[in-house]
Amino acid sequence: MASVSCKTLGIGLAGFGTVGSGVWNILARNGELITDRTHGSVNLEIRKVIVRDLNKFREADAPDEIFDTDLALLIEDPSIDIVVELIGGTQAAFHLVAAALKAGKPVVTGNKALLAERGKELFALSAEHKTPIHFEAAVAGAIPVIKAVQESFIGNRIESLTGIINGTSNYILQRMTEAGLGYPEALGEAKELGYAEADETLDVNGWDAAHKAILLASLSYGTLINYEDVYVRGIEMVTPLDIRFAKELGYVVKLLSLVRQHEDGSIEIRTQPSFISAKHILASVNGVFNAIAVKGDAAGESLFYGRGAGQEPTGSSVVADLVEAARLMEHGGTHRGFLPAEESPKLMPIEDTATPYYVRFKVTDRPGVIAEIATVLAEAGVGISGTHSPSNPEDPDADFVDMVFLLHKTPFGHLKETLAQVEALDSVTERPVVFRLEKL
Amino acid sequence: MASVSCKTLGIGLAGFGTVGSGVWNILARNGELITDRTHGSVNLEIRKVIVRDLNKFREADAPDEIFDTDLALLIEDPSIDIVVELIGGTQAAFHLVAAALKAGKPVVTGNKALLAERGKELFALSAEHKTPIHFEAAVAGAIPVIKAVQESFIGNRIESLTGIINGTSNYILQRMTEAGLGYPEALGEAKELGYAEADETLDVNGWDAAHKAILLASLSYGTLINYEDVYVRGIEMVTPLDIRFAKELGYVVKLLSLVRQHEDGSIEIRTQPSFISAKHILASVNGVFNAIAVKGDAAGESLFYGRGAGQEPTGSSVVADLVEAARLMEHGGTHRGFLPAEESPKLMPIEDTATPYYVRFKVTDRPGVIAEIATVLAEAGVGISGTHSPSNPEDPDADFVDMVFLLHKTPFGHLKETLAQVEALDSVTERPVVFRLEKL
Repeated sequence: MASVSCKTLGIGLAGFGTVGSGVWNILARNGELITDRTHGSVNLEIRKVIVRDLNKFREADAPDEIFDTDLALLIEDPSIDIVVELIGGTQAAFHLVAAALKAGKPVVTGNKALLAERGKELFALSAEHKTPIHFEAAVAGAIPVIKAVQESFIGNRIESLTGIINGTSNYILQRMTEAGLGYPEALGEAKELGYAEADETLDVNGWDAAHKAILLASLSYGTLINYEDVYVRGIEMVTPLDIRFAKELGYVVKLLSLVRQHEDGSIEIRTQPSFISAKHILASVNGVFNAIAVKGDAAGESLFYGRGAGQEPTGSSVVADLVEAARLMEHGGTHRGFLPAEESPKLMPIEDTATPYYVRFKVTDRPGVIAEIATVLAEAGVGISGTHSPSNPEDPDADFVDMVFLLHKTPFGHLKETLAQVEALDSVTERPVVFRLEKL
Repeated sequence: MASVSCKTLGIGLAGFGTVGSGVWNILARNGELITDRTHGSVNLEIRKVIVRDLNKFREADAPDEIFDTDLALLIEDPSIDIVVELIGGTQAAFHLVAAALKAGKPVVTGNKALLAERGKELFALSAEHKTPIHFEAAVAGAIPVIKAVQESFIGNRIESLTGIINGTSNYILQRMTEAGLGYPEALGEAKELGYAEADETLDVNGWDAAHKAILLASLSYGTLINYEDVYVRGIEMVTPLDIRFAKELGYVVKLLSLVRQHEDGSIEIRTQPSFISAKHILASVNGVFNAIAVKGDAAGESLFYGRGAGQEPTGSSVVADLVEAARLMEHGGTHRGFLPAEESPKLMPIEDTATPYYVRFKVTDRPGVIAEIATVLAEAGVGISGTHSPSNPEDPDADFVDMVFLLHKTPFGHLKETLAQVEALDSVTERPVVFRLEKL
């Protein structure tokens, strides 16, 4: 039973789109449950919602009188104890979050771009004003991976993080795999179903996933990684042909974000479409679901899987953060888990990161081509673990054929130099297509 | 950099078996990392280890002078701030934990049996003395599912929890599936590899898993479930034949713990070997790994996967709890998340729980048998969704054959009554074998 005498905390929401209305609905439905579960100590009330346009259709049924258009009200109004930033972008959001921290109002945000790009300044303000920023909703929707890395794995050196953390890309790749769709058709389908935004850029170019990986890596290694130093490739150039070949070879193509600490302490961090074994548990992460494998030196490999986006899944993480914020306000604690330190960690240059590869060449179909390519590879010391070149059933007599080589583990820089030599061969007619074969 | 001035907390370990030595090793290796990550605020030192036999071989290299044999020292010694209970059992462990709570010393325990059977008394003491009990290590080793249910899902009504949470049983069933081994052979192999204890009883009879499910259900629904009311079956009677038939039908056999809240508020809770679709993500949880699917009304379906036992995986959860305990001591907070309430929740009687079923009959091989059985089922209103009765390749002319019926969803009580009638038929020669087909 909720205690009647408990203090109610006033929440101010900036933004009332998908996630904002999810937060409203969850608190309307389960607010009393939260109060019961905390034995009356946590009572949350949304007292103000700031939107750009008061007349826009709202997905949740909140009373008109709490809506307003001036973000500054969330700072000025003394009845607002906690500020929830859900407006996105990095300009107005930065000013709001910074102002809230300076005013000593804890912040809950789901804005991964804001934290990945301006987190250093915000975490410094947070420390200076002893006012926490909570951001479970910024990475992987309902999946509590921030809490896992910050708290559950606090006794572990994090050896690696491997994630499928962009549902839009994952859905598109899945449809290309299952239905043989081309990229534009699969993207169109994702948009129709509401799985892709009107502007899909950050989802498909890999940056949404990369921002999340940067946050996870920063928490794992104690300092904010400079986003400009991170290697990111999207799924826009993935072809149905490579997806078909992947399948024939026992792999699936996934937009994979990978963070790994090497023995010299350097951090490998990259996001790119990669081949993973069709048998690995990450291969079965379908549709808009997300999954993150975390490997700690004590815990071993763990995997967290769930809804990576959506109204209530992401809202669920915002609400958990609100309860956390309320508890910290009650007990006077500040941040939990790791805090970014001053110096930047040493990143491993992308040229030094080594994996096996899938490389597809478009070649003139004449005798001796395989030998020519294999000779260049051999002279460069790049081993071949397999080849794949099914004849084209629609045109078995074609002049140009696709020739796949599976290559042994090689630093990416060396591979690029070697492939430049292969590309210079007369018989090779297009730039080679490269995917990493990730051993997970 | 660790601040030199931070207060060091003294840890007392009761028990120095697998998990205790894991905790020692993790703190020895990563203790400084923890202090760095908490900006100098958490500094943990194991000051006393209580064992039964001082001369027993120790798996970790702790100095002799901190070992002792009297549990009471952990309470009396003022240099011990936090007590870690890893002795197992429910007698001495209960007295130790109760004494620690009364003395205001926070407790970290991995003892699921203790909490499932005597948790009500211990949580009452914890509340009375405002001294927390932390028990992440009690459920699923390194997997932070307690924290997920208590904190990350605090804004959710928990609709269901479905877990593979006993690694020993899972390993045995996997080996029976992969290698066609019988139960005794697979158990022997598990013992040889150290995946089963010398006394395997609680692992294979389902109670280890059931204790964990009781804890998760109790946290989810706010009150401790009476363990005597819970339906539990183990894997001892699972035969290679049913495992083979499962495979032929597209299923795998897993020891599944299931908790579900129904619309009338009643709780279904049971642990038993069950058929699950070979395509479901839980089907790919192999060996000694654990996995728990949590479905919340806001978050949707999430899955947590990782090492369910072992020295450092379980040690990792103990260490995370120690850090949590240290933070609560610093900030004066008590329990986090839900706390068991007074009244017991309404459990759904096992007779009322309804699923589809796999039922195998041993029958006399003569014309009319299928019709006889089908008639009894039809008169009882139990629908048949499929049958399976491959002839025995080693003896196609056998007198007795195995006849499998797949049955539509029916309350378990009604199924039992109906099967009693089938069993009474002359042509049915043995008690039917029943597995639930779980739709996950």
